[in-house]
Amino acid sequence: MTVETLENLHDLIEQGDEGAIREALSDMPSADIAEFIDADFEVYRALNLLEKMPAEQQADVFGYLRPNNQQELATHMEVGLLAKLFSDMSSDERADVYAMLDIKLQDALMRRLAKKEREDLLRLASYEEGLVGAVMTSDYASIPAGGTVESTLKRLRQSAPEKETIYQAYVVDSDHKLVGVVSLRDLITAAPSDAIDDIMVRDIVTLTPDMPQSEAARIISRYDLIAIPVIGDNNVLIGMVTFDDAMDVVEEEDTDSMHKSATVGKIDGSLKDASIFLLYRKRINWLVLLVFANIFSGAGIAYFEDTIAAALSLLFFLPLLIASGGNAGAQAATLMIRGIATGEVVKSDWLRMLGKEMAVSTGLGITMAVAIAVVGSFRVGTDIITVVALSMFCIVLVGSFIGVLLPFMLNRLGWDPATASTPLVTTIADTSGVLIYFGIATAIIDFSVVT
Amino acid sequence: MTVETLENLHDLIEQGDEGAIREALSDMPSADIAEFIDADFEVYRALNLLEKMPAEQQADVFGYLRPNNQQELATHMEVGLLAKLFSDMSSDERADVYAMLDIKLQDALMRRLAKKEREDLLRLASYEEGLVGAVMTSDYASIPAGGTVESTLKRLRQSAPEKETIYQAYVVDSDHKLVGVVSLRDLITAAPSDAIDDIMVRDIVTLTPDMPQSEAARIISRYDLIAIPVIGDNNVLIGMVTFDDAMDVVEEEDTDSMHKSATVGKIDGSLKDASIFLLYRKRINWLVLLVFANIFSGAGIAYFEDTIAAALSLLFFLPLLIASGGNAGAQAATLMIRGIATGEVVKSDWLRMLGKEMAVSTGLGITMAVAIAVVGSFRVGTDIITVVALSMFCIVLVGSFIGVLLPFMLNRLGWDPATASTPLVTTIADTSGVLIYFGIATAIIDFSVVT
Repeated sequence: MTVETLENLHDLIEQGDEGAIREALSDMPSADIAEFIDADFEVYRALNLLEKMPAEQQADVFGYLRPNNQQELATHMEVGLLAKLFSDMSSDERADVYAMLDIKLQDALMRRLAKKEREDLLRLASYEEGLVGAVMTSDYASIPAGGTVESTLKRLRQSAPEKETIYQAYVVDSDHKLVGVVSLRDLITAAPSDAIDDIMVRDIVTLTPDMPQSEAARIISRYDLIAIPVIGDNNVLIGMVTFDDAMDVVEEEDTDSMHKSATVGKIDGSLKDASIFLLYRKRINWLVLLVFANIFSGAGIAYFEDTIAAALSLLFFLPLLIASGGNAGAQAATLMIRGIATGEVVKSDWLRMLGKEMAVSTGLGITMAVAIAVVGSFRVGTDIITVVALSMFCIVLVGSFIGVLLPFMLNRLGWDPATASTPLVTTIADTSGVLIYFGIATAIIDFSVVT
Repeated sequence: MTVETLENLHDLIEQGDEGAIREALSDMPSADIAEFIDADFEVYRALNLLEKMPAEQQADVFGYLRPNNQQELATHMEVGLLAKLFSDMSSDERADVYAMLDIKLQDALMRRLAKKEREDLLRLASYEEGLVGAVMTSDYASIPAGGTVESTLKRLRQSAPEKETIYQAYVVDSDHKLVGVVSLRDLITAAPSDAIDDIMVRDIVTLTPDMPQSEAARIISRYDLIAIPVIGDNNVLIGMVTFDDAMDVVEEEDTDSMHKSATVGKIDGSLKDASIFLLYRKRINWLVLLVFANIFSGAGIAYFEDTIAAALSLLFFLPLLIASGGNAGAQAATLMIRGIATGEVVKSDWLRMLGKEMAVSTGLGITMAVAIAVVGSFRVGTDIITVVALSMFCIVLVGSFIGVLLPFMLNRLGWDPATASTPLVTTIADTSGVLIYFGIATAIIDFSVVT
């Protein structure tokens, strides 16, 4: 949104020029109006602005608002108006808002909706979050098999206002079973007298309502589709997922998995809206858990206390060595986690991936052993340098090994591979690093000479 | 793709039943055929299979193949056939393939293309990777201003086969300047005699060719658009970016930034195709750099050697403390990096975000100080526990502080905030941790008693 449009709207509202406000709003994309309302949210100001738009735009703008603002508006609206807004909203957004309302308001709202909308709402609201059922819309265009291009176009034309898209029309039989799909592009280029059954595509990519949304998004992206039909038992058409929903899903999934990779729990809604206590709760569990996990590193150090006391200069290299193992491990883990998430790497690839990683990390380990030997040569004698370089090589190899295997193991256990977060890999690599380093030192150094 | 379809195709190819293969291919989505070819790539087998499809499908399947397979096929094809394939491909994919060919082949190919295709190709291939110009297509549907719905529909119908989408048609004046946009949905529902100038939308969201692709993807996702026009100087229409390109961009960007967050460089193409040497190159720089950065932690330890020698039991807590600072910092950094990437957090939010983070990390720090005090009470005396708990609190606070500020600082410097990768934040937090811990220990502990 341009700054001018924004300031212009601000000015108009201050001047209170009703006509000009209506005019300005009618030219603005709904997403921009929603941002304007969200940016400086105030219930009565928002209601006032919504009132100035035609019903359809109201519903559209409302659908773009932040969830907690939607909730607040809904509770402050006259129920009759809310019901009107609801019937103009797309069915999937309506279900999302409905799920946020308190039971009393849900009840009051239900009583004011038409039977068909009521049933639709209950059905969509019943699907678990994260599943296709919870993101699909029932505003798809369906047409009966057996028609002609002309009759179908006429039908689409009439039903267009209520449909989320008419660019894909689903051909159903008398039991509402999906038998084909026809695009508006094909309809437009076909002859009016052509039979739908002749031009429709019968080999259709479909979704089921109990599929994870992330899988649906991947399918939409893979086939470059505007929308995919959702089918229930017996191939009955029950909904549709559109590309814009898929984009939202991808964005949300990526945010979740990035947060997970840094051991931050799933935050519903926006980061800015999140309360201090919510952020605390989403972060503290893993932090404390990792403190306890790090005790093993501490115990490793305690176990080798004699070695350390005999050669305190070993400590100088401790942070470098254990960090290197963790860093190499984090690199390997991230490559695997992302590969698994995008579907490029599958479970059965683990051995191949491990083999490749061992080759890569051998190269990395040798380079880093040389680097640290050069650094160390300014500080300590040959024996300690030998220990440090050898340890570096082993630590990088072991860190990478953990980084590759952990995501695959979690995946096999049915967990999200992203749980093999960087901090977890680092912690495990740290402990291995301490043991490897001081183990090698104890074995190699002749302590009667060093100290 | 179902396993049956796949095995079926395998069987048919083995049986060599030409007609049945053609039949099977005509029913399969292009993305699936491409996967089939990629999975077990062999040039002559691939060429053989491509031959069996109609020209348009050939181009479509070719566009879905992995880049290095496209390249290999192109170099093994008869130039005339390649030129034919090129003219059937969408203009953006064509430009991508062209850029991969060697100069001799590029030359040979150019001589065989029609003048218009040649110019188009050169123009698209000239844009830098990562910019809108490199992902836009010139196969958009444009219509002259001043027409009627009927004449426009007729025009779209005729040009449909060459266009990537006709669901958005761009209205241009005699200088090819963009003056409006009209959707096929609006055209279908309007009366045939309506003037285009009356039904078109004049307030258009547009892109420019020198915009980053990630920004274009964000705009497409924000406005839920099927396609967005790209305009050059003087508002002249030069291209279009479609939602499926935007989805690919989002996926690629997310992969890049996840890799970056673990200090893995940008890997073009697939992880499976990446050579061992390429992976080595993409990982070694940061690993070595971080080794040198960790020297500061080592130097910190060396500086406090006397303190450590006097109270070796301090070492037990070292890994726990420095890891905690790094983990809290990584959490904070990841939240900021992702917030900035999705556009939810902007530069000017830094102070507000820092304030919130300090409140959150005060809570985290207190909880973790208590946790480590409980753990420590089994091992050491009150004075060391005091040092450890106090250090934990300070280290978590400082780590979080670094985690919030670093992404904003990098952003201000014009760098990608994701460069504030977990390992970098961890390394800086480690050094601070060493200094804070031993600094506090030196100040508080009465060494005449401890040892």
